Amino acid sequence: MKIQPVKGTRDFYPADMAVRNWIIDGWKKVSIRNGFEEYDGPIFEYLKMFQIKSGDEIVEQLFSLTDRGGRELALRPEITPTLARMVNQRINSLAKPIKWFSVPRLFRAERPQKGRLREFFQWNIDIIGEANEFGKVLADAEVIFTAVDYLRSVGLRSEDIKVKISSRELLAAYLRSLGIPENRLDSIYPVLDKKVKLPPEAFEEVLKEQVPDKETVSKIQDFMNMVSISEVKECIKVESDEFTACLDTVESVIDALKMMGVGDFCVFDPSIVRGLAYYTGIVFEVNDVQGDLRAICGGGRFDNLLHDFGGPTIPATGMGMGDCVLEVLLKEKGLMEKQVPKKQLNYFVASIGFGALAEQIYQIIAELRSMGYSANFSYKVGSLSRQLKEASAQNAKNCIIMGDEEIEKDEITVKNMTTGQQQTIQRKVFLKNPAKFIV
Amino acid sequence: MKIQPVKGTRDFYPADMAVRNWIIDGWKKVSIRNGFEEYDGPIFEYLKMFQIKSGDEIVEQLFSLTDRGGRELALRPEITPTLARMVNQRINSLAKPIKWFSVPRLFRAERPQKGRLREFFQWNIDIIGEANEFGKVLADAEVIFTAVDYLRSVGLRSEDIKVKISSRELLAAYLRSLGIPENRLDSIYPVLDKKVKLPPEAFEEVLKEQVPDKETVSKIQDFMNMVSISEVKECIKVESDEFTACLDTVESVIDALKMMGVGDFCVFDPSIVRGLAYYTGIVFEVNDVQGDLRAICGGGRFDNLLHDFGGPTIPATGMGMGDCVLEVLLKEKGLMEKQVPKKQLNYFVASIGFGALAEQIYQIIAELRSMGYSANFSYKVGSLSRQLKEASAQNAKNCIIMGDEEIEKDEITVKNMTTGQQQTIQRKVFLKNPAKFIV
Repeated sequence: MKIQPVKGTRDFYPADMAVRNWIIDGWKKVSIRNGFEEYDGPIFEYLKMFQIKSGDEIVEQLFSLTDRGGRELALRPEITPTLARMVNQRINSLAKPIKWFSVPRLFRAERPQKGRLREFFQWNIDIIGEANEFGKVLADAEVIFTAVDYLRSVGLRSEDIKVKISSRELLAAYLRSLGIPENRLDSIYPVLDKKVKLPPEAFEEVLKEQVPDKETVSKIQDFMNMVSISEVKECIKVESDEFTACLDTVESVIDALKMMGVGDFCVFDPSIVRGLAYYTGIVFEVNDVQGDLRAICGGGRFDNLLHDFGGPTIPATGMGMGDCVLEVLLKEKGLMEKQVPKKQLNYFVASIGFGALAEQIYQIIAELRSMGYSANFSYKVGSLSRQLKEASAQNAKNCIIMGDEEIEKDEITVKNMTTGQQQTIQRKVFLKNPAKFIV
Repeated sequence: MKIQPVKGTRDFYPADMAVRNWIIDGWKKVSIRNGFEEYDGPIFEYLKMFQIKSGDEIVEQLFSLTDRGGRELALRPEITPTLARMVNQRINSLAKPIKWFSVPRLFRAERPQKGRLREFFQWNIDIIGEANEFGKVLADAEVIFTAVDYLRSVGLRSEDIKVKISSRELLAAYLRSLGIPENRLDSIYPVLDKKVKLPPEAFEEVLKEQVPDKETVSKIQDFMNMVSISEVKECIKVESDEFTACLDTVESVIDALKMMGVGDFCVFDPSIVRGLAYYTGIVFEVNDVQGDLRAICGGGRFDNLLHDFGGPTIPATGMGMGDCVLEVLLKEKGLMEKQVPKKQLNYFVASIGFGALAEQIYQIIAELRSMGYSANFSYKVGSLSRQLKEASAQNAKNCIIMGDEEIEKDEITVKNMTTGQQQTIQRKVFLKNPAKFIV
């Protein structure tokens, strides 16, 4: 019986696993140096948890299951609800601001396409509990800085990618100023979020369904097409403190990012909306400049989410970056091949005449491994040249050669597999500090 | 709305995540030094895949789900079927022997108890494709050596744990010699596997249900209670080449382990059966000597599994070690606390008068982070002593102090948070090699 993997899932053979580990290790390293601590939650949660405040798109794409006790569960499509649940559980004992990161495996029951699978990894970073306005600006900026710090570390330049920054609050204030009622906003966001994903005419069509008045449609489009904060300030005259305050916040975040040295990666872009219902302030996406891929990462401020999950009202901001689009982009830019570590072995122990030497081979293998060196040997009794071939196939840096003669004198021969140079030394001397004899 | 996590799952707060990472990083490090390469598969597979050749216990405990296309899927309860599927897919292009490891997250829909949860991690190592008898012995020994190499590396001694080794083939040959028909064997194994988990009387009861003949019951019990290969050789007179060959294999594996330097961890124990249906040769378990915990790890040879999954007949051997029992044992032995790394920050940047210094603070923070040092600062405008307190709370090794005076001279002050010592230096000089100034 021949069995296939399920569509939209991935098998990670060692070469694929090396890519996955390289991406995830990079995310972890950058998170830690930016002062974040790692957390994780369960793969499945109660279904109802994901129905609170997530976007409709996410809820429609849940993998749900029922356990033996009849409980309705779902595979997590995002980790933010779990984060809200976990932080709420210990809200009083956790030191604020909470700077946490996670690399959850997530699931969406959607049709697989380029850069979008049914099972993927997503880097999440969040800063929770910073309440003063100045601190909130810094927290938003730190989230964006951390994302850029990673993307920069793998070789992406400001010519390759741009962080497009806007504010959900700013958009809301503008929509309100156009007379759109408060209770219509939540259903308009997912439509506006489609602007970058649809051709202009198609976008105008779906927007008209939500906003029947032609003039308003055109005003919203004009606003979303603006390219700078000063343009908004000049062209959009909304007389409200809220509108001004939102613009100031976006400006302050971008200023902070300039001071942090990543200003050339960042632009103001009011067409950024984000589909999720829970954003309340700054929203952003990182896109490739060439522009035919989905967003590499996205995030924003969600000051009400912990309260929506039964906790206190406590400010929060964060972002998520999936592995699929990132991998496509890094491959396109030629940044993968040379950076992903190749399989390598420190030592391959070869022998001339195995049987009699078995004990000596096992011993040296065991000792090298316990000292932290990777080491292998052949299970087959074969010629030396065949063993050296096996060593090369395993990309061994060094070969240790043992024969009756060496054993008698308690010596070994170390051969550098790159240069071909070799030296014969006392076994004990070698084992005291093997690194010294990588010739 | 307050939401709970699902029973039998775990929330990994940063302190819990540090434990999980320490365990998993240890598994990975030891796998690599023993010459294994990492792989992984999807979290869910077709349900039918887990119904081939897994033990009944596992199949009863599957979390199953149906996707939108009506496909019956299941969360993986073990990774061996996925391994068989993946290896079969590329059987011709993979270099043999295949030495692979994985650390899958697995799922079992059972009642949670001590050391047994519904969601857990399991270290798996497998050696596939070694066909000659001598190589098979070495492969079996290498799997066991690797498990011990890890357990030893975290501080467990041969007084704490024992690898109990037997052979499913040996047991089968003995049962056959007692007249038990071949087609009854698969249903007897799970019963015999309960011997160590049940009180002697209870075990005898369930065994009697499978083997009605009283004398045979007693013979099986006697066999399983033997403590050495020589005892079996002396007391059990089975005139079959197969029986003798099985005994020789077990003896050879134990001899190889002695030569590898882990003989004191290993004992022959014919009461080891393993519940899974697919084992065909050597089987083993690692138990704590005190003995009130479930097996820490278990494994064995499964030479038919790849064929059962639609591939060629190709020998394989491997083992799995879960994180739950291991964690309980390491805690009991006091080996956890001192080995799990604590949260630590390389630098906390404090300032005297934040506002004016913002740019300088962001810059130094951004530079340190991009150089690979973990660095944080306070979002609050606060007194120096308050910031130093925050630095201590984050376990910062060093504090960088900046004030108007320092900025003017382009200097910074570095304070060692352990000794309290501090020095003032040129900012540029410091940033050339910060490690030099950890006083």
